[in-house]
This record gives sequence, structure tokens and C-alpha cells, in this order.
Amino acid sequence: MRDRKSWNVPASTFAKNTFNPIRNIIENMQIVPHPDKPMIALSIGDPTVFGNLKPAPEIVEAVVEATRRGSCNGYVSSTGTEAARAAVAKYCSVEDKLELQAKDVVLCSGCSCALDMCITALCSPGQNLLVPRPGFPIYTTLAVGLGVQTKDYNLLPERSWEIDLEMLEASIDDQTAAIVVNNPSNPCGSVYTKEHLIAILEVAARNKVPIIADEIYDHFVFEGQEYHPIASLTEEVPVLSCGGLTKRFLVPGWRMGWITICDRGNVLDQEVRNGLQSLSQRIIGSNTLVQGALPTILANTPQSFFTDTLAQIQANAELSYSILREVPGLNPIMPQGAMYMMVGVDMTMFPGLKNDLELVERLISEESVFCLPGKCFDCPNYMRIVLTVPEPQLREACKRIITFCSRHHASAHVNGLAHANGHVNGCEAESLKNVEKAMVVEVKSGSE
Amino acid sequence: MRDRKSWNVPASTFAKNTFNPIRNIIENMQIVPHPDKPMIALSIGDPTVFGNLKPAPEIVEAVVEATRRGSCNGYVSSTGTEAARAAVAKYCSVEDKLELQAKDVVLCSGCSCALDMCITALCSPGQNLLVPRPGFPIYTTLAVGLGVQTKDYNLLPERSWEIDLEMLEASIDDQTAAIVVNNPSNPCGSVYTKEHLIAILEVAARNKVPIIADEIYDHFVFEGQEYHPIASLTEEVPVLSCGGLTKRFLVPGWRMGWITICDRGNVLDQEVRNGLQSLSQRIIGSNTLVQGALPTILANTPQSFFTDTLAQIQANAELSYSILREVPGLNPIMPQGAMYMMVGVDMTMFPGLKNDLELVERLISEESVFCLPGKCFDCPNYMRIVLTVPEPQLREACKRIITFCSRHHASAHVNGLAHANGHVNGCEAESLKNVEKAMVVEVKSGSE
Repeated sequence: MRDRKSWNVPASTFAKNTFNPIRNIIENMQIVPHPDKPMIALSIGDPTVFGNLKPAPEIVEAVVEATRRGSCNGYVSSTGTEAARAAVAKYCSVEDKLELQAKDVVLCSGCSCALDMCITALCSPGQNLLVPRPGFPIYTTLAVGLGVQTKDYNLLPERSWEIDLEMLEASIDDQTAAIVVNNPSNPCGSVYTKEHLIAILEVAARNKVPIIADEIYDHFVFEGQEYHPIASLTEEVPVLSCGGLTKRFLVPGWRMGWITICDRGNVLDQEVRNGLQSLSQRIIGSNTLVQGALPTILANTPQSFFTDTLAQIQANAELSYSILREVPGLNPIMPQGAMYMMVGVDMTMFPGLKNDLELVERLISEESVFCLPGKCFDCPNYMRIVLTVPEPQLREACKRIITFCSRHHASAHVNGLAHANGHVNGCEAESLKNVEKAMVVEVKSGSE
Repeated sequence: MRDRKSWNVPASTFAKNTFNPIRNIIENMQIVPHPDKPMIALSIGDPTVFGNLKPAPEIVEAVVEATRRGSCNGYVSSTGTEAARAAVAKYCSVEDKLELQAKDVVLCSGCSCALDMCITALCSPGQNLLVPRPGFPIYTTLAVGLGVQTKDYNLLPERSWEIDLEMLEASIDDQTAAIVVNNPSNPCGSVYTKEHLIAILEVAARNKVPIIADEIYDHFVFEGQEYHPIASLTEEVPVLSCGGLTKRFLVPGWRMGWITICDRGNVLDQEVRNGLQSLSQRIIGSNTLVQGALPTILANTPQSFFTDTLAQIQANAELSYSILREVPGLNPIMPQGAMYMMVGVDMTMFPGLKNDLELVERLISEESVFCLPGKCFDCPNYMRIVLTVPEPQLREACKRIITFCSRHHASAHVNGLAHANGHVNGCEAESLKNVEKAMVVEVKSGSE
């Protein structure tokens, strides 16, 4: 018994330290879209929201069949059914280079859960995790909650976002538990060559640091590009690769992610395999209906579905790149895959705007176009646009960005045009609802 | 850069500390079932494995509809869709006593995930969590991984497993972060009266300790019993209640669990609500197809489905109770709900058996009946049997238990009968497969 007079129930340190930087940045935004212009959200990394990209009927009917089968309702192993794990092992294997078995697969509740489990299994409080900049902030959200520090290594825009390998290696110290390599990349849309991946592996091998490969955009590469799972290029470096149905199969809400344990040197057999198994028992895996459908989905989804999806995204990338590269002050970096493009902003050309965050805010309030500021990815002077929107909307968004930039460009200032269309305070309920919805999806899902 | 000659990748302290006691006990068992007797697993807390209990067609078709709807594939808020949360809020509200709204609900990947989030949100390393003994070991698995100690309070078999309230109150100290109350209970099958729940709440209120209510067996009570959500009986004590579709709707694999934040005193508004929200962003919620079906499932599942399920389980409880109470040395405690019965074992009556663990092992090797030993629930001299098996199997299992007990009973020893049918080492592949499957489900799911 204890003597307390009043209620005081604090949150745990873990909960307090779990912090989503995107959420923090966007929640502090004071944005109201232009009342006369329908909102176009180029901010949401969810390919399903616009209705133009849908999962193939084979994918949907596989789940319907599994649901009606009546044998996918019970508990299964916390790492997933043997059949589903074997299907993933086959899907992720590379002939003669990476041979995975069911025992090497841990099914997870989405790829975020897979990343969470990998980081949690490898990193102890006080250690550090190397993460890309620009990079998807969930690595930091997950690590900091655990008391693990993240250290950024730079990606180089002038080299199509390849890793600054010198900086990467210089960042490694005795407390470095793992390196996160994200390929294809969110937010950059970059796809690494075999040579660059080998160079990354050499850094890891020299320093004996395992890799957590965020490969949720596996195979999501434009025509002429080639995707290599990083684990297929090493016999030495242990790799925990995180993937899932989310992006390529256009079903992020299904929460079907996985870890493949790629460890030809048997380094992870001593402790980490068991650690992942133990952690999987905390929440006991992913939905069994999707597990039941997984072998069919991975075997039967037609190649044309993937090709069609990528063709739309690549066309959007080329369209927006060709338009925005002509805009004074903007410097888009052409992506090679995934579903994003980073657009550099020469802020000196926009003297009326403080930084990329203000630029993005004003783009919403003046043009109802919502991009994520580079600040969300720890990368100032950029904004990220999503390439999964229908082509007419993307075209319209680019048009409005041109209008916006010419209005705010230094040359316009000289001519006294700036701020002619400054902040708009009026707002129609519907527009507000749109931006709120966009923000809610972006912020709460933390998942683009 | 660092200087390391060889690979050494340890698991994190978190992973090493995440430890499932059931797994540890059962993995060290050396058991082979009797080759001539088909295995009957009374060990698996999964109502779906025997095929006699199936989800209602309304439940299944609601998911089929949601899957084909085409609008349940994208990311949603990490706490769940507004519609699904509103449906849960309505389902969990009690008129005039507990009024919940969508904002009070966090959807989780199963009830284990819900418990994980509650414990993680409330307990910091160095603090302690009070848990029932006998109790489901996942509370300890989850807490210890976080560096949180658990302290057991006793349940009293002679009072139908009510809580020893004096011991509960004496266990509370300055580092007590929360009390776990599990009602109806796994493994006991007890259902607390309103008066007992109020007495528990008085202890919590006097000491200003919040409650984590494991109510995954909500409404799962036999005829004549009444289920009260503990939060409906207090205006003061903050309660995080964990529930889900798992047990009552017979779909444990679907991983649809939830937390309801019941906090009429607004104690949790200061930090814990936000903490749960932050933690939900680590894995971003539960499957959206089931979320899409949830409003229909909760509104349209016919009452007759629940009644029929419970009638089967109650009949099994009465059958096995009436048989086993007549067995010298056994003392079954009649349950009032859930799907388990604890059977006390007077070990002094079985002098050839060291403890409940050996009794359970020998019951497998001699009779191919698999019960979980009380040790799994920190409760020696008991075994737990599951009541969801088909009646003929349960009857056969009871018959074998009688045979086993009479063979090992002290009176048989006197007559020189003991060990006449000692360990059997031969084993048919099929029998072994059965017990392995049973153990795998039990152990890996950690979820009975």
C-alpha cells in the first residue's frame, strides 16, 4: 500500500521517447488551402488513395478464397505459417545468389513492424543506428523510443542519391549496432547499382556491422533499371531485409510485411534469430487470412499488373520532371524507382520565403497543393512529391507550382509582384476537410 | 570506422529479456505420446483447431464484402479507421455506465498487441506491474522484456478464483505502475461478481493505481453468470481495457484487438493517451480488411451464434467437472466462463510423480492427453484443460485421465500396480506430428 492523495499516471519513458518527426513538423503547420482550388495532395505515400492504382483481381480474390476456406482463422506460429513463409522465401530468393527457406522468414504486421523488430532485436540502449539522410523518419522514431541514437549518413543528390561512403564509414563507431540501407529509396526514388551496393557491403564487412535493408520498394524500379536485393551480393555481411506486400501489390492497409534473415556466414544464428522469434511472440504475427492468401498472391499476380503500375508512375515521373526542371529555382532529381521525386529548391531565389517548410505551407494556402517539406526527411531545401496521383491531377499540380514559383521568384519581387496573392484566410469546409484528411493520413499512418 | 577482426552480432537486451515461460517449460519437456492412442490436445487455447466451433457466416462474409469493396486497402490512421473505432466504442459501451467514443479506442494487431501497448505505455524500466497468479504468462513476457518487474497477487481457488485483496493491496508500492485484472480468466475460467470488481476498484482507488483490464473473454460467460466490464463500475479509476474479436468471435488469427481508454476522471489525458497514440505509430495498426468488416461484424453477428458456442463450452465444463471431481486426487474447480478449467492435483496422492509437470508429461506419454501444467501459470499442483474440444474427444480424454490417475494413485502403489505402464518410447510419426503441432501452436503463438 502506498500513500497517494491524487492521481498521477505518467506515460512511460518508452512512450514519451517514441516521437514521429513528420507528425511534429506537420502538426505545427498552420495551413488552410486556397478556398477556390481543390486540394491536390502530393504528400501521401499511399498508392491507393486516388483510385487510379488498384490491386490486381488475383490479389483480392486470393484473400476472398482464404477467408471462405475456413481454415485460416486460428492461431499460427508467431512468425507465420510454414506455407506463407515458404512462399516468401521463394519470392525473395535469387537463383545461385540468395537461397532462403521458410525458417529464414518472419512475417510481421506490415513493414513498419518488420523494421521495428529488426531495430529492436539488434540495438540496445546506448548504441547507435546509422540511417540515410534524406531518409524516412520511422527509423529514428523506432530507435529513439528504444533509447537508441540514430546517426545520419548523407545521400548525394549529384550522384542520384548514392551514399556518401566516406561519411558512412567515418560514422561507424564501437557502439554502432547496424546500418539501415533503403533501396529503392523513400523519399529519393533512387535505385542503387550493383556496384554501389557492393561498395556499401564492403564498408559493412570491413567494420563488421550488420545491415538492416529496407527493401519495401523491391522490384519497384523503372524500365531500364535493375533491382538487386543487397543480401544477394554478399556472402559475409549479415542482412535483415524488410519487405512486404504494401507497395508493389498496392495493399498497404493489409499489414503484411516480412523480415528475411540473410546470413550466409551464420553470424545471426548465435542470438539474433532467437531474438526475432522472441520478439515476434509479443504481438503474434500478422493476419492469417492474408497469410492464407500469400502463396497464391506471390505466385499468381500477373506480371502485367506490376508493369502497368510502374508504367503509370514512370510516366508521371517523366512528366513532372520535365515540367519542374524548367522552373527557375527548382531542381528536381529524376528518380529511378519507388514512387517519389525530390525537388531541390534554391531558397535564395525565393527571398520572401524563409525555408522549405514555409514554401510548402504557402503552396497549400495559395495553390492547394500539398508536398512534404524536405525538413520531414532531415533534408532542408527540398520538397518531396508523390508520383502515384492520376496524370491530370499531377499536371494541374505542376501548373500551380509554376504559378506559385513565378509569383515568389526573386525576379517577381523586383517587379513588385510578390505577395500580390499572399495568405488566404478564407476557407471552405470541404477544402479544409481535404487537407485535414491528407494530413491525418500522412501524420497518423507515419507510413509513406 | 572501427577495428574488428571477426563478426559478433549479439541480440539486444530487449530481445534477450523477452522470454516466454510457457515456451521454456514446454521446450524442455521430453515427451512422446503413446503410439497406440491418438493425441487429444486439451492444451490449446484456440477454439478453432478442432473444427467444431466456427465463426458465424455473417462474420466471414463481412470480410469478403470488405475485401471486394476495394476501399479497404490503403493506410488508415495508426489507431484505426473512425468507423471501426466508433463500432468498437458502441460495442464496449454500457448504457449509463460507460460511454465510449471513437477517440477512446485504439485498434491493435490482436489482443496481445493491445496488452503490449498498454504495458509499454504505462510502465517504465524499474517499475512493477501486478499480475494474477495463476495467470496468463504473456503479462510477464511483455513486462520483463521492457525491464519492468511483475509481482504476483494470488487468486483463491476456494473462492472461485477471486483475488486475494489483502495481498493485492500489500503488493502495491511506490513503483507500481498498474494492476492487471483478467476477467473472465485464463486459465481459471472464473467470472467476477460486480461486488468483487468493486472491491478491486476500491484497492486501485485508495492507492491511485490504474488498471489494465484483460477482457478478451468479455461476455464469454455461462448461463446464469453476468459479465461486467470493470470500467463500467468506477468513475474514478482509469482503466485501459483490452479486448478483441479473438475468442468470442472465434477468429484468433485475424489479429483484431483493441484498447478502450476508460477514464472518466481524465487522468490519462495528460500523457497516456498521447503515449498510446505514439506507440501505435510503431507498427501502424491492424489489417484494414477486418477493420472494414468490423462495424458489420459487431452489429450483425446473431445472438444465437454466441449462445450456441457458450452452450457447447458450458456442457463440456459440466461434463468434465462431473467426471473429474470423482477421481481421487483430482480437484477440478468449476469455471463460470471463458474456455478453461483448472484441475487441482493432490500430488501426495501420486507418490510416483514429482510434480504437476511430470504428471502432465506422463499423461502424454502414457495416454496421449496433453494438458498444460500449472507451472505454466505459476501455479503448481494444477493442470489446465481446454473446454473447446468436441464432446466425444473430451469424454475420451477424461476416461484416459481416470485410467492414468488410478494407475498412479497411492492406493495403486500399495497394490504394486504403479509403473505397470511406464514410459513408452516407441512412437508413430503421426502421433509425434500431432503433439509437435500442438506444442508449436501453444508455444509459438503464446496465445492461449
